[in-house]
Amino acid sequence: MDRISENIISKLLQNKKYPLLKNILVELNPFDIAEILDGVPLEQISTIFRLLPKELAAEVFVEMDSDQQETLIKACSDKELQAMMDELYVDDTVDIIEEMPATVVKRILRNISPDMRKSINLILHYPDDSAGSIMTTEYADLKKNMTVSEAFRRIRQTGVDKETIYTCYVTDESRHLLGSVSIEKLLYAKGSETVGDIMTTDIITVHTLDDKEDVAKVFDKYNLLAIPVADQENRLVGIVTVDDAIDVIQEEAEEDFIKMAAMQQNDEEYLKTKSIIHAKNRIIWLLVLMLSAAITGKIISGYENAFSAIPLLAAFIPMLMGTGGNCGAQSSTMIIRGLATDEIRLSHFLKVLFKEMRLSFLISLILVAVNTVRVLLQYGSDPEQIKLAIVMGLSLICTVFVANALGVILPMAAKKIRLDPAMMAAPLLTTVLDACSILIFFGIASAMFHL
Amino acid sequence: MDRISENIISKLLQNKKYPLLKNILVELNPFDIAEILDGVPLEQISTIFRLLPKELAAEVFVEMDSDQQETLIKACSDKELQAMMDELYVDDTVDIIEEMPATVVKRILRNISPDMRKSINLILHYPDDSAGSIMTTEYADLKKNMTVSEAFRRIRQTGVDKETIYTCYVTDESRHLLGSVSIEKLLYAKGSETVGDIMTTDIITVHTLDDKEDVAKVFDKYNLLAIPVADQENRLVGIVTVDDAIDVIQEEAEEDFIKMAAMQQNDEEYLKTKSIIHAKNRIIWLLVLMLSAAITGKIISGYENAFSAIPLLAAFIPMLMGTGGNCGAQSSTMIIRGLATDEIRLSHFLKVLFKEMRLSFLISLILVAVNTVRVLLQYGSDPEQIKLAIVMGLSLICTVFVANALGVILPMAAKKIRLDPAMMAAPLLTTVLDACSILIFFGIASAMFHL
Repeated sequence: MDRISENIISKLLQNKKYPLLKNILVELNPFDIAEILDGVPLEQISTIFRLLPKELAAEVFVEMDSDQQETLIKACSDKELQAMMDELYVDDTVDIIEEMPATVVKRILRNISPDMRKSINLILHYPDDSAGSIMTTEYADLKKNMTVSEAFRRIRQTGVDKETIYTCYVTDESRHLLGSVSIEKLLYAKGSETVGDIMTTDIITVHTLDDKEDVAKVFDKYNLLAIPVADQENRLVGIVTVDDAIDVIQEEAEEDFIKMAAMQQNDEEYLKTKSIIHAKNRIIWLLVLMLSAAITGKIISGYENAFSAIPLLAAFIPMLMGTGGNCGAQSSTMIIRGLATDEIRLSHFLKVLFKEMRLSFLISLILVAVNTVRVLLQYGSDPEQIKLAIVMGLSLICTVFVANALGVILPMAAKKIRLDPAMMAAPLLTTVLDACSILIFFGIASAMFHL
Repeated sequence: MDRISENIISKLLQNKKYPLLKNILVELNPFDIAEILDGVPLEQISTIFRLLPKELAAEVFVEMDSDQQETLIKACSDKELQAMMDELYVDDTVDIIEEMPATVVKRILRNISPDMRKSINLILHYPDDSAGSIMTTEYADLKKNMTVSEAFRRIRQTGVDKETIYTCYVTDESRHLLGSVSIEKLLYAKGSETVGDIMTTDIITVHTLDDKEDVAKVFDKYNLLAIPVADQENRLVGIVTVDDAIDVIQEEAEEDFIKMAAMQQNDEEYLKTKSIIHAKNRIIWLLVLMLSAAITGKIISGYENAFSAIPLLAAFIPMLMGTGGNCGAQSSTMIIRGLATDEIRLSHFLKVLFKEMRLSFLISLILVAVNTVRVLLQYGSDPEQIKLAIVMGLSLICTVFVANALGVILPMAAKKIRLDPAMMAAPLLTTVLDACSILIFFGIASAMFHL
């Protein structure tokens, strides 16, 4: 929401022009109203809220911040709360409940219908990352022997409470899924045909305990609007809709970004998170990596006499460690993302490793050529400098190969032992590679200069 | 597709059991058939393809690799090509054409209907990252004065060729968008009501030249299934559907991962890309960063006498550079992602910087405490070592502050001058920070030890 409209709203509120305010708000989208409310003092939110028609109020409520939702629930009478909860979809209610403190949850559960309460408890009971936790139990169901006209009658009667009616599911008496039929297909069919005649039986189903990330991949692969969710006994218990799949796709990408920068997960927005929480999410990895870097330091201090003999050696350390780290960041990012999107599988290990080795060859050739020219230009070309350039060149080649190899091996090994490959990204890998490149460098330098 | 089903298919092909093969294939999803074809020799693909019903064949074709599509088009007669192209949606055809060499494109354009050709040229004409490039021109349009019954009749007549009929768009004679109406709303309305009565006039529209990334954000924000696209004169020219939005969301995240690891964009899958292309995408940044690291090396070699005086100093370099780099990776990742998702805006600059400074304070306190204990335990606690620990502590504090500050400043500055903030991620930032931490370290060490 831009500043001008926020000004208008606050003016109207100040001057208590409620009917006018209402007329403006009902023209807006729930999301935009929620964004306006974000800038409004808490005590005025319930005033605005009471202006909205029941259904719109519920839609706005879903889009609000959990802090604001909590305040608003506390300001509501039981009757108002009940009216609003009646308008919400089950999966939205579950999302809200998951963010609320226990006392508020109790109040919500007291003020919803027994049916709704049952559905909510069903969904709350599934693990956090499962398909069950993101599904809604409100789907349109039809029976096989209904005619198309009967099907439309049923959809018209019951559809208003369903999250989507664009795909209807056909179940038998024991709720086993027999098929699905889209509204589109129903529209093109004759009124006298039965649902059983026109339904598709080749349907993609997921299970309640499937990873929600895999469910999102199914959406992407098959371009679906909704996927039915079955329980262990293959009975239909709910559906996941495409908007929830988009949320999962984005969450998972965010999670990988965070992990790949050596931080711990945080679901809140950056600006809304307190500094101390940010610090907590970052400090563990920083400590681990700092102490690991001390090992590299220890290795360097073992070569004190090399530094005294050829002080120039120290000048090459940043370049070597930097290049190793950058190569490792590149290869590990490709592998981690490939594993996340299923483009790369564990069975591709040798193929991937071989590819990285071939490109290490190409890359290190170019890097060494450019670096040799740079060293000779910068430090002259007497025999001692040429020897130094050779040490540098050999170290670069070995470092690039080791960096790209570890960029493949570490993430794939993590996946193999069921750790998240994303933790093997640049920060951890770089720390390992720093130690490797120092060992390579001083190993080669000691041999060449007989140190 | 698992190995067993691939075996079955290849057996059936070998033994020429075509009717049986056909019966199996028509039970499968287009995506799965495309995956099967991926493992089949090119000369057999057209055999399988000719077994499929026309509509299914077209759906499979869309899901195939562009290499395979090309082979198949070349193997088709003009008549076969024409039949298949008739079944494709405009936006899918555009996607295919964009991947084909010029000769194949000409053949395709020759074999499609004039209407289709016009639509394709329209879309091809929009820039790559624009809403126009991902839209389809096949939407269901209604008129304001149609009754609901007439609307249904029109949808039944023309809907089969539309990508989605779940949202219909209401336009006037000059194709200006007046409103939209969902099939759901049409279903709940009385047959005698007019479309104008029940349509929503508060519709979210995007423009042909809007960034497709922004279009994807609109989908996510408002949970839509389709968004209408208007041209400069505000006339409706097409719609973008949610499946295309999911593709954009994933592409954009991939792009950021790649850029943040200092690589150039590559649209092909990792395994299908030749090593030399991978090398090409990686080498530029590696060279730039390697040469920049030489500056840090130059700084170090300026402190040769410091090393000779206190050789232990070199042992602290990896820890200091490592910690600086890791802090920078953390803060820049938070900022780059925040900017990408609009959680953080340029106007938040001071707020974000202040937050990072507060958490730098917390983080550096803990790091210094742990590191001091480590140094004293490892090297003993005579006055000289304590002095060294103080140098280390002060350098750590300064480095953490600089790292987190640059992690905010560089991405936001990039955004300000309309560069992609993602290029300011760890690899580039680390190289800058390496130089900073070395300067800080030797500056403090020189002052304390009077070097």
